[in-house]
Amino acid sequence: MARSDGRNDDQLRDIKLTRGFQIWPAGSVLVEFGKTRVLCAASVTEGVPRWRKGSGLGWVTAEYAMLPSATNTRGDRESVKGRVGGRTHEISRLIGRSLRACIDLAALGENTIVIDCDVIQADGGTRTAAITGGYVALADAVTWLGAAGRLADPQPLSCAVQAISVGVVDGRVRLDLPYEEDARAEVDMNVVATDAGTIIEVQGTGEGATFTRSTLDRMLDLALAGCAEINALQTAVLAEPYPGELPTPKAVKS
Amino acid sequence: MARSDGRNDDQLRDIKLTRGFQIWPAGSVLVEFGKTRVLCAASVTEGVPRWRKGSGLGWVTAEYAMLPSATNTRGDRESVKGRVGGRTHEISRLIGRSLRACIDLAALGENTIVIDCDVIQADGGTRTAAITGGYVALADAVTWLGAAGRLADPQPLSCAVQAISVGVVDGRVRLDLPYEEDARAEVDMNVVATDAGTIIEVQGTGEGATFTRSTLDRMLDLALAGCAEINALQTAVLAEPYPGELPTPKAVKS
Amino acid sequence: MARSDGRNDDQLRDIKLTRGFQIWPAGSVLVEFGKTRVLCAASVTEGVPRWRKGSGLGWVTAEYAMLPSATNTRGDRESVKGRVGGRTHEISRLIGRSLRACIDLAALGENTIVIDCDVIQADGGTRTAAITGGYVALADAVTWLGAAGRLADPQPLSCAVQAISVGVVDGRVRLDLPYEEDARAEVDMNVVATDAGTIIEVQGTGEGATFTRSTLDRMLDLALAGCAEINALQTAVLAEPYPGELPTPKAVKS
Amino acid sequence: MARSDGRNDDQLRDIKLTRGFQIWPAGSVLVEFGKTRVLCAASVTEGVPRWRKGSGLGWVTAEYAMLPSATNTRGDRESVKGRVGGRTHEISRLIGRSLRACIDLAALGENTIVIDCDVIQADGGTRTAAITGGYVALADAVTWLGAAGRLADPQPLSCAVQAISVGVVDGRVRLDLPYEEDARAEVDMNVVATDAGTIIEVQGTGEGATFTRSTLDRMLDLALAGCAEINALQTAVLAEPYPGELPTPKAVKS
Amino acid sequence: MARSDGRNDDQLRDIKLTRGFQIWPAGSVLVEFGKTRVLCAASVTEGVPRWRKGSGLGWVTAEYAMLPSATNTRGDRESVKGRVGGRTHEISRLIGRSLRACIDLAALGENTIVIDCDVIQADGGTRTAAITGGYVALADAVTWLGAAGRLADPQPLSCAVQAISVGVVDGRVRLDLPYEEDARAEVDMNVVATDAGTIIEVQGTGEGATFTRSTLDRMLDLALAGCAEINALQTAVLAEPYPGELPTPKAVKS
Amino acid sequence: MARSDGRNDDQLRDIKLTRGFQIWPAGSVLVEFGKTRVLCAASVTEGVPRWRKGSGLGWVTAEYAMLPSATNTRGDRESVKGRVGGRTHEISRLIGRSLRACIDLAALGENTIVIDCDVIQADGGTRTAAITGGYVALADAVTWLGAAGRLADPQPLSCAVQAISVGVVDGRVRLDLPYEEDARAEVDMNVVATDAGTIIEVQGTGEGATFTRSTLDRMLDLALAGCAEINALQTAVLAEPYPGELPTPKAVKS
Repeated sequence: MARSDGRNDDQLRDIKLTRGFQIWPAGSVLVEFGKTRVLCAASVTEGVPRWRKGSGLGWVTAEYAMLPSATNTRGDRESVKGRVGGRTHEISRLIGRSLRACIDLAALGENTIVIDCDVIQADGGTRTAAITGGYVALADAVTWLGAAGRLADPQPLSCAVQAISVGVVDGRVRLDLPYEEDARAEVDMNVVATDAGTIIEVQGTGEGATFTRSTLDRMLDLALAGCAEINALQTAVLAEPYPGELPTPKAVKS
Repeated sequence: MARSDGRNDDQLRDIKLTRGFQIWPAGSVLVEFGKTRVLCAASVTEGVPRWRKGSGLGWVTAEYAMLPSATNTRGDRESVKGRVGGRTHEISRLIGRSLRACIDLAALGENTIVIDCDVIQADGGTRTAAITGGYVALADAVTWLGAAGRLADPQPLSCAVQAISVGVVDGRVRLDLPYEEDARAEVDMNVVATDAGTIIEVQGTGEGATFTRSTLDRMLDLALAGCAEINALQTAVLAEPYPGELPTPKAVKS
Repeated sequence: MARSDGRNDDQLRDIKLTRGFQIWPAGSVLVEFGKTRVLCAASVTEGVPRWRKGSGLGWVTAEYAMLPSATNTRGDRESVKGRVGGRTHEISRLIGRSLRACIDLAALGENTIVIDCDVIQADGGTRTAAITGGYVALADAVTWLGAAGRLADPQPLSCAVQAISVGVVDGRVRLDLPYEEDARAEVDMNVVATDAGTIIEVQGTGEGATFTRSTLDRMLDLALAGCAEINALQTAVLAEPYPGELPTPKAVKS
Repeated sequence: MARSDGRNDDQLRDIKLTRGFQIWPAGSVLVEFGKTRVLCAASVTEGVPRWRKGSGLGWVTAEYAMLPSATNTRGDRESVKGRVGGRTHEISRLIGRSLRACIDLAALGENTIVIDCDVIQADGGTRTAAITGGYVALADAVTWLGAAGRLADPQPLSCAVQAISVGVVDGRVRLDLPYEEDARAEVDMNVVATDAGTIIEVQGTGEGATFTRSTLDRMLDLALAGCAEINALQTAVLAEPYPGELPTPKAVKS
Repeated sequence: MARSDGRNDDQLRDIKLTRGFQIWPAGSVLVEFGKTRVLCAASVTEGVPRWRKGSGLGWVTAEYAMLPSATNTRGDRESVKGRVGGRTHEISRLIGRSLRACIDLAALGENTIVIDCDVIQADGGTRTAAITGGYVALADAVTWLGAAGRLADPQPLSCAVQAISVGVVDGRVRLDLPYEEDARAEVDMNVVATDAGTIIEVQGTGEGATFTRSTLDRMLDLALAGCAEINALQTAVLAEPYPGELPTPKAVKS
Repeated sequence: MARSDGRNDDQLRDIKLTRGFQIWPAGSVLVEFGKTRVLCAASVTEGVPRWRKGSGLGWVTAEYAMLPSATNTRGDRESVKGRVGGRTHEISRLIGRSLRACIDLAALGENTIVIDCDVIQADGGTRTAAITGGYVALADAVTWLGAAGRLADPQPLSCAVQAISVGVVDGRVRLDLPYEEDARAEVDMNVVATDAGTIIEVQGTGEGATFTRSTLDRMLDLALAGCAEINALQTAVLAEPYPGELPTPKAVKS
């Protein structure tokens, strides 16, 4: 049974990474996984949160959100509802955790980098796109800090980070699910991996169904192969010079 | 004394209106006033809020927000703070009021259109850009409703709406202030006008200074001329066919 | 077409300013515009908000609110709803901005004055009454600070501030609208002015209608004449000695 | 040891009850216990809260609040803090419970009366003033409902309600404590009673001290005598005709 | 008319106090009044709240809450509702006030003890059980502080504290009401007393009924006798050695 | 390197399941994993949430929370903070998802079961204990519904659900981590499985470290073996008759 967009089961959607999308943040990347578009901005602040002060360690955190107009049916704003929902919290924490896995916070020095991942258009896989694009924005912000002479140590990034979704749809294990497949998937899994092929995070869920150990193995195979492909794209795009002028964000003491 | 971007006192920044920026909303416009970029999306819902039910009248409302990464110094998310700030509320109300001035809510029928104005990049004049782009998104949403046979009356729009800022900077009355001028303006005014040259809203404030009646007159002259120019751009862009496929938003009962 | 209360189009309602209405605040004024009654209290605190400390500058801010019983139909308390509404925020900001326009914050020294404007009874024009009464309360608080030897400079007030509403009702430009006229006005405008005849703030809105430049001019004429009349009342009432004993508010470090 | 205001230990402060203080609510009473001033407004709504619908019973509830300017040191607004404090909640519940004790909710019919008690000036005993004034406002609202033919039964009030504070100060049992005494009282008690001399509520608290059964007895003696005096005042003021025109509140379906 | 559980009118339910119920807090007591079960934990923190710093005085406060599953019909969580309800606030304040009456805060030194009273199962009298068990947990926490050499003075507890409910049910004055009686009581009273027979707090309320002075006297007789019985239980249980190992809570600077 | 509690790497802590811990909920289980103690209560309500009405399907959801006194250092209440934290939300969602995987919501009929998981004492693994105990409480609630003749179909449970944690500590893969190991684990994973040996959820995270595919495989081996052991305990405890009387919860229409 073919996929509605004609892809093979183990095939990624078209992935694009556009650096320098905004002028103020130290890193700003528009990432596209097919029709899914997420704006990932890495903002640098001098200093760290209060509970970290004087530790010599930096801090990296992430906030994920969805524009109301990003989804097929308009979603209510969390600012208007007055609270951040459970799903939003969960994804923000996942992105932050994943990106902290690739950075040496001592080398970063007492700087804070916030990765804002705002979904402009949603069509499945927004959290994996956010991690993938967030890494590139983080890399640009680290380069910017280095150029400004504000790193404690020249190379704080220890690996590159990518993420991809995989699932069981129509009884078949498939890679990089768009919304239409995600909504009816029997099993849904997100894998965050590094350029060394190691794993940072695995989250797999049976949606009204359970799955066997061998299905899990097959999903991991596809996901890790997908992450390797995505890493090649990240490497290529980061090899290019920064598009336009380097940003000059105002570093404010936290 | 020249303006830092080389413009004349009565000259607008480059203004661009990109229709069809997103695929889901019935209207979606990226509006640019120089470096200021606002994404204006018009989402259509069948039905109206509870307090309006059975009236036969439609409803148009707006919500304005700023991405954390849109400003020079990263701003905190209002969803995380748990409340919408006073400035955000004030601008949302202004946009909604301004756009309701151009639409016959009886002709709209019992449909709700929400205009989401999300600032992607801020460099002064975000509220006037939002009104200007919001009008174009609203026009596309109304066309879409008409094509779907869901209007009570074929032509609910009675006029076109534009807005521009004007102020006193360095002792001179100037049009369309970027952030750098806005931050040190002695007087700051926003004018919302129609293609008939009439006024929908005037909001002028002395910032640590007061102003004379004749300064007010001069500001109105510049602003109304600016609005006329902007209207020409709106007319031109709306005369083009809709870029790409027409959106097919899912109309959900409110 | 005559006004329902028999006034001429350019005539104010009866305006009363009662100083010393409460015993604790440094200034406390009950202002009445016809049936509209607003209690304006100016409370003095030693010190300034954290973001201002060490600047040598004082701070003036305002908070506006409505008693639930002030309106024809009882309104819900914002404390119970758990958030301050958009309209309340907007008016509080307007009052604060207007009163800061008349005071030299360096001369005030590092003192904070909060102007609380609580509407006891609403019948249109509550924000303009609040600004008008708030100025008198502020003037009394400044006098009190001077008597206590706590001003950095003897005369921080640079002008007097008044406000009035004006609008188009039944096709006619009218001054100082009561609720009955305000509710059906086609255009509604508030003007804040000084005793020098200059303008601090202009906010004019078409309510489901637009208005011409010449209507705007006529509204400004009426409003500025009204402000001049109100200023005469302020001057007269402030020329009288303080009624009763001077208040002895407890100055608490902020 | 004499009281600072010259009263005997068993003497009330001057108590005043001004009916018809506001024009919109069905009952509106300014109550004064010495310098303490509370505005008690009884607003009538047709219908009852959802959980009561169809029961044939009415509902009476109360909300207590303090203006920021009512106290010696300005208090923060609960609307700005975003939550109603514990003390406010506690007093609101006490007032509502006390006033429900005197009314037959079946006779009231499916009407809701909200008693808003807003403290204009605080000098001790605000909750007992609120109950005392709230009863008079409630009585006027009930009369108004009767005149409008909206009661299920002609006489829903079964008794009159008063309240007074009593405490141990300087080792002596004293009646009706002003703030200066209340702040240093060893024991603090509030008693709510009826014109029949029975008790609705007793709340006595040792403040950093405990008290004997005989002290409790002495406090009850004074409080019940005080309540009888207050009841005489209520009776006298309610015997007068309603001052000015009867209010015409708009009855809105809940 | 007999009580449904066969008790005499002046008879307590079975009361049990289990010390050392949890391993982390310095005091942890499961208190049972019949089927009512409340977990009272006394947690010690070094330091005091900001407004108390440098005073040399300690602080004792309490927080009361109900598990959703504690009641016959499941209750919603206050964390999910986003605000602590009025009843919860009121009871938390009562417990804190009652327990502060027995402790010399200067002798406690700059330590904070929080008494968490979480209702595991509710069957009437949860607040009186919480005060009774809270006292025992507080006593254990004070002993623990003494053993750690962290008291300013060896014996900060000046008395023991107990509480009990009493009411009028079926026209009879009865002690220690279970839910079934409490729900239909005409009068409901809670008394907090000390081992010296003195009173800390009395709260009596007519529930849709008023009560005479002689009923009040009879209720006080029963309640004070009940408190004396409870005190005997507290004394006995505290005379036993601490069950299991002494807790080793981590004292964190506040 | 030995574990501090003497267990083998693949050994569970002592696990206890006490049914009928509370009297009101239809199912109530105290689950203990070593010193970790979680109270799992399954409350039944007739009807389903609004968005599900008329679907013929039931609903199962879960809420997780921690008593302030459950942890070594006292935690602040989320009700007092006014919002449910990200971690709490995430775990609540995990428990709900896991338990919905074992129940046929059509067979349940339009009933709602809420599983409240309140942590009484925390020592690592609270979420896995909650799922394990929550399943037993759910099973008792389903039996209770069946006995009451309120199931649409006699056997809605399709499998049993267990969960366990596993991680890499001191370079070794270990099962069922107590807090002391969890806090310094390099990798942390939770596995939710069924009595058929299939998987419902896998969540593995590198904590400042990444892990290889083969480590993942070894963790899965241990976790699935642990789940099988836990299932044997669940089966044994559910085979016993219900302790004490069957609960008689009041079924309230939602």
